[in-house]
Amino acid sequence: MIRVALDAMGGDDAPRVEVEGAVHALREFPATFRIQLVGRTRDIEAALKTHGTVERDRLEIIEAPEVVGMGEKPLAAVKGKPRSSIAVGIGLQKQGASDAFISAGNTGAVMAAATLLLRLHEGVQRAAIGALFPTAVHPVLVLDGGANVDCDARELVGFAHLGSVYVRDVLDRPQPGVSLLNVGEEDEKGNAVVKEAHQLLKQTPGIRYVGNVEGRDILAGQCKRGRIDVVVCDGFVGNVVLKFYESAGRMFMGMMTQAFPDVLGRPETQQLFKFLDYSEYGGAPLLGVKGVVFICHGASPSRAIKNAVRVAAQMVASHLNQDIGAELAEGGAPR
Amino acid sequence: MIRVALDAMGGDDAPRVEVEGAVHALREFPATFRIQLVGRTRDIEAALKTHGTVERDRLEIIEAPEVVGMGEKPLAAVKGKPRSSIAVGIGLQKQGASDAFISAGNTGAVMAAATLLLRLHEGVQRAAIGALFPTAVHPVLVLDGGANVDCDARELVGFAHLGSVYVRDVLDRPQPGVSLLNVGEEDEKGNAVVKEAHQLLKQTPGIRYVGNVEGRDILAGQCKRGRIDVVVCDGFVGNVVLKFYESAGRMFMGMMTQAFPDVLGRPETQQLFKFLDYSEYGGAPLLGVKGVVFICHGASPSRAIKNAVRVAAQMVASHLNQDIGAELAEGGAPR
Repeated sequence: MIRVALDAMGGDDAPRVEVEGAVHALREFPATFRIQLVGRTRDIEAALKTHGTVERDRLEIIEAPEVVGMGEKPLAAVKGKPRSSIAVGIGLQKQGASDAFISAGNTGAVMAAATLLLRLHEGVQRAAIGALFPTAVHPVLVLDGGANVDCDARELVGFAHLGSVYVRDVLDRPQPGVSLLNVGEEDEKGNAVVKEAHQLLKQTPGIRYVGNVEGRDILAGQCKRGRIDVVVCDGFVGNVVLKFYESAGRMFMGMMTQAFPDVLGRPETQQLFKFLDYSEYGGAPLLGVKGVVFICHGASPSRAIKNAVRVAAQMVASHLNQDIGAELAEGGAPR
Repeated sequence: MIRVALDAMGGDDAPRVEVEGAVHALREFPATFRIQLVGRTRDIEAALKTHGTVERDRLEIIEAPEVVGMGEKPLAAVKGKPRSSIAVGIGLQKQGASDAFISAGNTGAVMAAATLLLRLHEGVQRAAIGALFPTAVHPVLVLDGGANVDCDARELVGFAHLGSVYVRDVLDRPQPGVSLLNVGEEDEKGNAVVKEAHQLLKQTPGIRYVGNVEGRDILAGQCKRGRIDVVVCDGFVGNVVLKFYESAGRMFMGMMTQAFPDVLGRPETQQLFKFLDYSEYGGAPLLGVKGVVFICHGASPSRAIKNAVRVAAQMVASHLNQDIGAELAEGGAPR
């Protein structure tokens, strides 16, 4: 039975949303996992009371009296609050008492705690955020989504490995196509770091590298040299494009809704644009740490939390962590 | 009378599209300008024949027997083909025989020729491409859109000046809000270059700096600290986001068209999404050179060429070039 620890104190409306997400996950998904709600027991119990019958033998409460605020400095918060829901939740995994950790709280603090407590895989310099971009074809994993604003070429090669294993294990695509985000497809395009990464990726064993791609290729899910499952970039450009995409979706939908309320109300429209709903994906994996850590948006609705539980359980079930360790050891960890 | 030189040999379907764009510009816009079609006279004359009566006293043909191909190395092409339509067209401006140059040809070659022949304004290290992003509110100028993949902080400050003057002069907005693209709004966010640029911009006279903005703020056209007219970023991220946006628009429209052909056929839908049509803006100004240079997409339809003529004439009429010179001299050119 997979044990998924969930930071009950993380999001903007915690613990209400987290508890609701946990309850729905237990009700709707197959019983392959149990949930460990980490936070202030009294607040969690109060939130649980509003939900009627809950399968309590699959739901445990782990007391953590401290809470890390959204605005707190990550490292200081992690060190200064050892009994926070983030530190306690990740600590469970370190002790072997849990298999995964989910939080909609302070992302920097989750990263810091995961890096300090779980450590990084060999060859990984910093953990990366894997952002799943919905497209009209298949979701494409863009990483780094914002954890590393300055990257060298070897870090980008590391992201290629991390993304490749994630897509293979969790999205169940056997031979993921990995691309490098650039301003053109030719060898000589890009800044110094990207040019070097392009040359390294061409020679990296274990990676099906399809080459440089441009901003327009991400949503196409393919380029001239094949299918794109993973897009590698530094966390600065990844973060900008990710946030830009969310806003573009909102803008288009907003304009359509205003102009054609009749059309947007139709069930087939809801269905058509369901792929754009980020809560479908739950959030984003933090890749590179020795363990399973999943990050949700602070404003996540309970549906996102519920789906995060599903994805985190998949990450554990597919042995993602072990496979990443093996890939980096065998396939040429970037040194 | 403003003299606009148009590279007749530039785009994917030259000179047909260029000649058609020129003819339509002469017919549709007020007679404040004349057009100089630069290229192979015989080919241009042949294309002109298909258009019936053309106001020939406002249309001149300037012979340029050589053509720079899309795949040619910019600097080598400019130096090796002094009689190309690009070199001749920009040369006219140098000689005082023309006021503006438009090309849908090899962008790198246009940049190289403009930099070599016209030179850069004091304090500008490299010319930048100003990409106008359509939004549901007002178009937002993002620069650099792809000319400079590696930028230092002072170059970013230079882009702030260039964008600010462009928006003031050509878009007629008196006090443009200038923002810096980043991964968060706080002072400590971003990579080293962006952090330094943020501090510099806060102290730059003549710039109404509204601070760091995120990817999601571009299309909103505003952030907490005010309206956004200009978004400053390096050419790598600018190019990625620009191309991504074009593809996102296509994806949304494609999905809607497939699902609701009835709705998409409605005239009000066409009107609603007209703002997304890039040919409305014609292309992008090349800013920082001493002169007026406007770049069109290689696949531009004649409508884009036509609108490029309109915008280039506006750039001349508003004294953009002189105003940029004055801004950089007075307002603290980045040194």
